[in-house]
Amino acid sequence: MKNSIGIDIGGTITKIGIVSSEGKCLKKTSFRTKEFNSFDDYIIKLINTIDKLLSEHQNIIGVGIGAPNASKNGTIETPANLKWSGKLNILNKIKEKINLPIYLSNDANCAAMGEMIYGNAKGLSDFIVITLGTGLGSGIVCNGKLVEGSEGFAAELGHFSIDNKDRYTGLNVKGGLEAYVSATGIKRTILYMMSKYMNDSVFRDISFNNLHGEDITRAAENGDFIALKAYEYTGKILGKSLANFVTFTQPEAIILTGGLVHSGDWILEPTKIAFNKNLLPFYKNKVKILLSGLEDKDSAILGSAALVWKNIL
Amino acid sequence: MKNSIGIDIGGTITKIGIVSSEGKCLKKTSFRTKEFNSFDDYIIKLINTIDKLLSEHQNIIGVGIGAPNASKNGTIETPANLKWSGKLNILNKIKEKINLPIYLSNDANCAAMGEMIYGNAKGLSDFIVITLGTGLGSGIVCNGKLVEGSEGFAAELGHFSIDNKDRYTGLNVKGGLEAYVSATGIKRTILYMMSKYMNDSVFRDISFNNLHGEDITRAAENGDFIALKAYEYTGKILGKSLANFVTFTQPEAIILTGGLVHSGDWILEPTKIAFNKNLLPFYKNKVKILLSGLEDKDSAILGSAALVWKNIL
Repeated sequence: MKNSIGIDIGGTITKIGIVSSEGKCLKKTSFRTKEFNSFDDYIIKLINTIDKLLSEHQNIIGVGIGAPNASKNGTIETPANLKWSGKLNILNKIKEKINLPIYLSNDANCAAMGEMIYGNAKGLSDFIVITLGTGLGSGIVCNGKLVEGSEGFAAELGHFSIDNKDRYTGLNVKGGLEAYVSATGIKRTILYMMSKYMNDSVFRDISFNNLHGEDITRAAENGDFIALKAYEYTGKILGKSLANFVTFTQPEAIILTGGLVHSGDWILEPTKIAFNKNLLPFYKNKVKILLSGLEDKDSAILGSAALVWKNIL
Repeated sequence: MKNSIGIDIGGTITKIGIVSSEGKCLKKTSFRTKEFNSFDDYIIKLINTIDKLLSEHQNIIGVGIGAPNASKNGTIETPANLKWSGKLNILNKIKEKINLPIYLSNDANCAAMGEMIYGNAKGLSDFIVITLGTGLGSGIVCNGKLVEGSEGFAAELGHFSIDNKDRYTGLNVKGGLEAYVSATGIKRTILYMMSKYMNDSVFRDISFNNLHGEDITRAAENGDFIALKAYEYTGKILGKSLANFVTFTQPEAIILTGGLVHSGDWILEPTKIAFNKNLLPFYKNKVKILLSGLEDKDSAILGSAALVWKNIL
C-alpha cells in the first residue's frame, strides 16, 4: 500500500498527516505556525516533522503542500495570513532536505484535488470548489485539470468584485465576494442587519470579536430575525454569484466547504433558490450544488496529500 | 503541404475556406445561411460545397466547423441566430457523407483556437478571447486546452450578469455583459446617452436601425459628446469586467476581436484604464490586453480551420 504526506500551512496551525491512496488519514500531527518569527526556523521545524514521519512509516511516495498564495514556481508570495513577507521559496528549501517528489499549490486548489480524488468530485472533469472560511477560496477544475493560470494565482474568486456592493475586503477590493460570503462575511452581515433594522436580537449583546458561526445557526433555529435576514442575504449573493460563475466553465458541480456550510440548510436553501433563479436557461438542472465529501477535520491534510496522487498516478 | 477546411456558420452567411497549416486562406467561398428554411436542405448545400473543394484541392486532412450554440456532442442547440430550432445533429450528418475527421465548436471557441494557432496567442497556454460583434462571445484557454465545460456551453461571458445594470440581453438576462459591450451594446449606449444628456449629436438624426459602428467612431473623431460618452461608458464596463475575469483564470493575455474593436483606441483606451484600475495588486502588469492577430476578413474561417490543427497535430 502506498501513502503520501499532506501538509496544510495555515496562518495559525500547520497540519501534517500521512494519507493512504484510499484517502484514509493514517497519522496526523500539527504545530503552531505563528510561533516562528523566522521563515527559516519554520522550515527547519517542518522538515524535522516530515523526517520523523518518514522514519516511522513506509511506502511514502511524495509530499503535497497546501499554502495560501502559493505560486506555480514553488514559492509563497506575500501571504496576508502568514507572518513572513516577500517571496518564500518553500519548495526548493524542502527539496534540499527531503528526497521525494514534492508538490505545492494554493490551499483552495488542494481542496479541489481532495474532492476529486477522495470526495464528491470523483469522476468529474469540470467542477468548482468554494471554501467558505475566514475568507472565500476557490479551486477550479476544467478538462480534469486544475486551473492555475499563468503563475498559479487563478481562482481567486474571493476577490471577485460584485458591482453594486460597497464592502471592502482585506485586499481593499470594493464589493469583493468574500466580504459577503465567508465565515467573516456573514458576521459583517449580522452587523449590517442590526444597523438596518431595530428588531431585537441575541447579537445586540455580543461583540463582533466574540461572535461565532455556531451562534448564528443557533439564533436562526430560535427564529432570531437578524440571523434569518443574514442567511437570506448571504445565500442570495452566493447563489447569484455561482450562477454567474457557471457562464465561465459550465461545471458539472459546485462543491461548498468550510466553516460557513456548517450552518447547513440555513445557508444552502437561500443559495440554491438564488442560484436557480439566476441560472441561464440552457444550464438549468445541469449544475449540482453539493457539500464537501471529505471529513471536515482532515480535509486540509487530505487535499494536500491529493496533490501527490494527482501528479504521480 | 497539408491543408484543412474551415467553416463558419453565421446567422446570415456561411463561409468556407481552405487554410494551410501556416494559416493562409488559400481559397474561400460563401453562401447565404438564411436562404435555407429547412436544416436538411442547408446540410445538402454545405456538403456539396465541401465536396467541390475536396475535388479541387489535395492534402486536406480535416474539417473544422464553428457555429453558434455548438455542443460537445456535435449538435447545435436552439441557436438564437439561426432559423432552425431544436437539437441539430450537424456533426453526424456531415460525417455520413464526408470521410475526413470533422470537428465542431462554438464560434468564439474557434476564434480562440485561431489566435492560438495563427494569431496573437501563439505559445500561450492561458488566455481569453472576447469577440465583440452583434453579441459578446468568448473562448477561454487554460492549461493549453479550450474550456468547454460539461457540455460545451462554457465561456458564455456575454451572458455574464453585471449586478447594478438593468439592460436585458436577447436571452432576457438582466445586466448581461453583451447588452453593454458589443457592437449592438454601444448602439444601445448611444440611445442611453441621448436620453441622459441634452447635448447636440449627429445621432439625433439617425435611427437605431440605421446606426453603424463606423458612425460612432467618426462622430468621436469629430468630438461628438454623445459618442465620446458612449466609448467611455463601454470601456469602463469592459475593463472592469475583464479585471474581474482575471480572478478566474489568470490569463497571460486577453485578446479582443470583432466589430467593436474597429474603433481602435476609442474603445481600447478607456478599457485599459478601467482594467488597470480594477486589477488586483498581484496581477498588475502581468495581463496584456491585445487586439486579434488574425486578418479580420478571414478570421472566422481561420478559427474554424484551427480546430483541425489543434486536434490532429
